[in-house]
Amino acid sequence: MTRFGKYADRGLKDLSREAVTAALDAAGMDKRALEVAVVGNAAAGLVTGQECVRAQVILREMGIDRIPMVNTENACASSSTAFQVAWLYVASGMYDVAIALGVEKMYVPERARTMAAFTAAVDVEQAQELLARLKPPSEKQDGEGGAGKSRSVFMDIYAAAARAHMQKYGTTKEQFARVAVKNHFNGSLNPHAQYQERYTLEEILASPVIAEPLTRLMCSPIGDGAAAAVLVSAEKARQHTTKPVWVRGSALVSGSDDRSVGNVNARAAQRAFEMAGMTPRDVNVMEVHDASAPAELILYEDLGLCPEGEGGRLIDEGVTDLGGRLPVNTSGGLLAKGHPVGATGVAQIYEIWLQLRGAAGERQVAGAKVGMTENGGGMVRGEAAATTVHLLSV
Amino acid sequence: MTRFGKYADRGLKDLSREAVTAALDAAGMDKRALEVAVVGNAAAGLVTGQECVRAQVILREMGIDRIPMVNTENACASSSTAFQVAWLYVASGMYDVAIALGVEKMYVPERARTMAAFTAAVDVEQAQELLARLKPPSEKQDGEGGAGKSRSVFMDIYAAAARAHMQKYGTTKEQFARVAVKNHFNGSLNPHAQYQERYTLEEILASPVIAEPLTRLMCSPIGDGAAAAVLVSAEKARQHTTKPVWVRGSALVSGSDDRSVGNVNARAAQRAFEMAGMTPRDVNVMEVHDASAPAELILYEDLGLCPEGEGGRLIDEGVTDLGGRLPVNTSGGLLAKGHPVGATGVAQIYEIWLQLRGAAGERQVAGAKVGMTENGGGMVRGEAAATTVHLLSV
Repeated sequence: MTRFGKYADRGLKDLSREAVTAALDAAGMDKRALEVAVVGNAAAGLVTGQECVRAQVILREMGIDRIPMVNTENACASSSTAFQVAWLYVASGMYDVAIALGVEKMYVPERARTMAAFTAAVDVEQAQELLARLKPPSEKQDGEGGAGKSRSVFMDIYAAAARAHMQKYGTTKEQFARVAVKNHFNGSLNPHAQYQERYTLEEILASPVIAEPLTRLMCSPIGDGAAAAVLVSAEKARQHTTKPVWVRGSALVSGSDDRSVGNVNARAAQRAFEMAGMTPRDVNVMEVHDASAPAELILYEDLGLCPEGEGGRLIDEGVTDLGGRLPVNTSGGLLAKGHPVGATGVAQIYEIWLQLRGAAGERQVAGAKVGMTENGGGMVRGEAAATTVHLLSV
Repeated sequence: MTRFGKYADRGLKDLSREAVTAALDAAGMDKRALEVAVVGNAAAGLVTGQECVRAQVILREMGIDRIPMVNTENACASSSTAFQVAWLYVASGMYDVAIALGVEKMYVPERARTMAAFTAAVDVEQAQELLARLKPPSEKQDGEGGAGKSRSVFMDIYAAAARAHMQKYGTTKEQFARVAVKNHFNGSLNPHAQYQERYTLEEILASPVIAEPLTRLMCSPIGDGAAAAVLVSAEKARQHTTKPVWVRGSALVSGSDDRSVGNVNARAAQRAFEMAGMTPRDVNVMEVHDASAPAELILYEDLGLCPEGEGGRLIDEGVTDLGGRLPVNTSGGLLAKGHPVGATGVAQIYEIWLQLRGAAGERQVAGAKVGMTENGGGMVRGEAAATTVHLLSV
């Protein structure tokens, strides 16, 4: 993957070239070995005007041609969706060597384009109504001006979910802030992270309020970047490495109005665990979709790391810290590593790949054998539009 | 499929609902039987602002939820790409029941949005240079004003290809016009076609010039529409029908700078025929991507219906007419049926499905057993960015 960041002078092609080249180098393969490419990008149509054929425009530029290329979108889960489709091309036996690329360019001079891209990840016909409903109480008195004008619609969504969790379970703003302390610490150990500074609990809480209870340091930043993964059949893997990383489970689900079936994240995890024949107890390291700090805490419960309502206790006990029983977001997560929307899914898989290969440097989880990623995308009728869970093992 | 057309009052949700409902009815299935959905749409991000999660926004509205949903793009081949991915989900054994939906809304009051969508199907960074290079000689003297301002960039691309074919092989404007006569005749027999009028050769030639040698009636129109297909495992198929239509070959390829490997359309056809163990001689009815009349004539050669340079002779001899040896575009093709970009791929498959089931009414090809679709999308460095070929049989 590229380092995530705000790159005034880099576009989709340039970012992708770095990630694809690095992935091929890591696999010990030439670009001519690729048999199919699946490219996840969430919003170039709105941000750069490049829609329809992003994969071809990007990959032809670096001499990758002829092969089947599929462009996938699923908002923030665009490239983990690309990863599933690439995996399917290989797991089905149709091809032996696939590449999944996630890339996003969000940082452009015209900020309205970036904001339009976030709004496109909800039902655009209902976006205004949604924003009005989510507005924090502290902003209600300001009239109709504020909400969603200068921030992504998702921060309003996350803030509302955080307030509901506080009310229902007594979770505190400090507990959410602890997630940010942890992830910024982890990011300080990751050379690919957009932000590599450490912060105290007080500093997290004292940073500017975005939408109550979220402060700026509890929100993932806007940025650009790319990440790529080469997926090969078992036979090919054995030819190229003595330490392959295996895809053990791959789940993609969407939200439902019927919450009796479990929420979207719980169902994705359940399906992936079933496919892999594993339980949450088997996992040694995990990357989850902390687009905001409260999201990670709530995901602890959804993904089965602790009972409902006990996410606050889990973070307080340090279970998910580096050095804890189950480190979460060792990469720094979306909060510190950054969140170039369509690049995030494969970037999570990259972190797990590093961990399982024992190549994660100062943030290595000792003896990690099984890793998991959870990546959520968009929002339709109150739930993630798409959630993916992948289980990988050595 | 919906009838294709210009629908001032219909959006993506409404069009999709009609197509999905019709597909489920035809399959004798309830929406709850669906296990995965793949949705192809080329340009809603630019046309309606809805990017990222189109499948979820569209399908949740009609009560389809929970299941994996993948959004695919490949310009004009977006929904045939969706069809391949849906097929892969079923053919691999991962799921038993999938739906592939293609939908597009191109007709909006702000014409610049529609044109931006077409430009997004080439490399947007090179679009201006491409347009300047393709400009017909007759327009060169008008200075820099005309080309591409009021028409899709693709009509300039097709016009340039037509002029080259005329120069190299002596193909005539009348031969291109004959393709349009044929397809508009076929469209007059198709209740789902956007245009259902018949035209004489003289009328085709006398319609306004879009880009030499293309007249308006030789170009596919702008329109809206949706088409859907239910794909199921062999076992499920036998439970629901005594006359299943089988997917025998599914190919997706992209263009290459190295033309010694054969052009993009020829390679797609070759791969599909290999997969199916068939040759062009086995095909009884075919839908091809006649975004312009010359495109169909040139495709005859690419797809192996006749030797290079003999497309003009083939149309003159009536081989591809309804009643000929190999009827092509019995639906009216993109020229008459219309071309709501992301809906076209599955709509082609719908026509072949009708033909193979003997349900094509006045345009039925007697005894059709094997049908083929060819769907091209976008343009990168002088070739289609994506071409799909599907072979179906009863």
